[in-house]
Amino acid sequence: MTGRSSIAVVCGGVGAARFLRGLIDAVDDRSLTADSITAVVNTGDDCTLHGLSISPDLDTITYTLAGAIDPERGWGLVDETWRAMESLERFETVRPDGSAAAPRWFNLGDRDLATHFYRTARLAEGATLTEVTDEIRRAWSIPIDMVPMSNDRLSTMVTIIEPDGSHREISFQDYFVRLRHGVPVASIRFDGDAELSDPARRALTGATSVVIAPSNPLVSIGPIRSLAGVDDLLAARRDRVVAISPIVGGAALKGPADRMLVELGHEPSVVGVARLYSPIASTLVIDTVDAQHAAEIEATGMRCVITDTVMSTPQVARQLALDTLAALP
Amino acid sequence: MTGRSSIAVVCGGVGAARFLRGLIDAVDDRSLTADSITAVVNTGDDCTLHGLSISPDLDTITYTLAGAIDPERGWGLVDETWRAMESLERFETVRPDGSAAAPRWFNLGDRDLATHFYRTARLAEGATLTEVTDEIRRAWSIPIDMVPMSNDRLSTMVTIIEPDGSHREISFQDYFVRLRHGVPVASIRFDGDAELSDPARRALTGATSVVIAPSNPLVSIGPIRSLAGVDDLLAARRDRVVAISPIVGGAALKGPADRMLVELGHEPSVVGVARLYSPIASTLVIDTVDAQHAAEIEATGMRCVITDTVMSTPQVARQLALDTLAALP
Repeated sequence: MTGRSSIAVVCGGVGAARFLRGLIDAVDDRSLTADSITAVVNTGDDCTLHGLSISPDLDTITYTLAGAIDPERGWGLVDETWRAMESLERFETVRPDGSAAAPRWFNLGDRDLATHFYRTARLAEGATLTEVTDEIRRAWSIPIDMVPMSNDRLSTMVTIIEPDGSHREISFQDYFVRLRHGVPVASIRFDGDAELSDPARRALTGATSVVIAPSNPLVSIGPIRSLAGVDDLLAARRDRVVAISPIVGGAALKGPADRMLVELGHEPSVVGVARLYSPIASTLVIDTVDAQHAAEIEATGMRCVITDTVMSTPQVARQLALDTLAALP
Repeated sequence: MTGRSSIAVVCGGVGAARFLRGLIDAVDDRSLTADSITAVVNTGDDCTLHGLSISPDLDTITYTLAGAIDPERGWGLVDETWRAMESLERFETVRPDGSAAAPRWFNLGDRDLATHFYRTARLAEGATLTEVTDEIRRAWSIPIDMVPMSNDRLSTMVTIIEPDGSHREISFQDYFVRLRHGVPVASIRFDGDAELSDPARRALTGATSVVIAPSNPLVSIGPIRSLAGVDDLLAARRDRVVAISPIVGGAALKGPADRMLVELGHEPSVVGVARLYSPIASTLVIDTVDAQHAAEIEATGMRCVITDTVMSTPQVARQLALDTLAALP
């Protein structure tokens, strides 16, 4: 990679946020500046709660890159309080059906609420999610571009299998947060008529290279790929697309990606990930613990890069970013 | 007043809340129970901020009757924190026009937010404001009935006079909170196509007596009177309606009622109040400091009751309630 380069990073939440943190730390070593990085972020998890427009993946990336994420929880802000949520307890049983109308299982910290207030107020004024995301990014002094995959609402819906075997479709947050992704999944559906946002399209087509961050391929990268044209667009420049496996040693580092891969008929391994990404990416970055799968990955038509991918420290994240950049044409 | 009686109280915010507190304390002395009291509450000040449905008068009454109002501020909850509002500071200048999209001048405490979350969530589900108000009332164990004047949005709009003499119409909260009611008012308008709610109608027509609480006659009682049929309904049973003057010695105890009366062509005195209420109420309760106006009030066709109306302690509020009840037929 030479000259003035740019990178589009296709992102979910926590894993993508850590990778972006490493990428920003790595730019000094490359012919790259932070403002030439564009994060194209999943909004399939977005939801409306208590009237508030919530974009979990955008916020996780913002808070992580601002150094404001809570390191213990891995989500939400550090130095947080929960007074608003605690005060909802009083209202939990007064709805006629006895259930909570304003549930507390989606925990919104008091400081975090300001982000949702701002987003909600601006969207109500008619601003696009792209505009609001850029404003929130600037409010937090994030040095990279951040764009939502779409300005339209696309909702990831999860059909779960109940203990009696019956199927029921629920929202992603219902599955992920309320049920702590502890139930089997029968299928995933992306509900809504959403288009890839213009800046997301510009980034994916115009960037020198595209990185698919180590996020859940089905429910974080999946919603972005479900938008019309995205897979075709990436397939057409597949040689410039590199993906990082979120599966290490057959397990997801966080979240239900491994179980979900099995439940939805994929192999819960770097090979399964390679099969999902080989149509749109030419290279897969895998962890050293998965080195023995290199040949199988190359059989799917992907080049394989082996390095440490478990971003337990900023140093590992930075090295992963450098190794990923080095794999780019 | 004998037998099983009931009272409807036409209410604004703080003054009404204190009167209701006194009325509840007084019921033991009368053939009355708390659950035979219905507060019919102004919702003309209601607004949507950051996506949240806010009903200031309903909340002031709820928090006051729950013993949870902050005694220093006179609004909002005691033991409150302001973390969400403080965190909005970061977003104050990132909107393209440089102004705050989610302003902080309407201060929402962290604990208070739960009430707005619940109300917003229930209204979004399709519940009426009447239903939600009753649920919030029960959540706070308020022993009286509380009903909004309407399930429809009616917005009190204030045309203010700018320093250069030009007129500009703004929302009531813009005038009352943001500008701290510190600008002259040219006119008041109630915007919206709202109907008196059914339980409000039942209370005003069916209660043994109606009390008009000591609230701003123009912007607290005014919105209720602006609803089709309300003045006719009260006029038809005028002998059972008693009003309490919010003006004492020519001044409002709280808020801009005195200046607003002058600006809108009324006399800023108990006599001005009497002229506003004489078509719909047969009795006006005034403070002892205004005793010299008794004859002028009776000249408007109203009977005059003179007592202490400045509810500086619960004891005064209770005695005012007893004196008001004694004036009822």
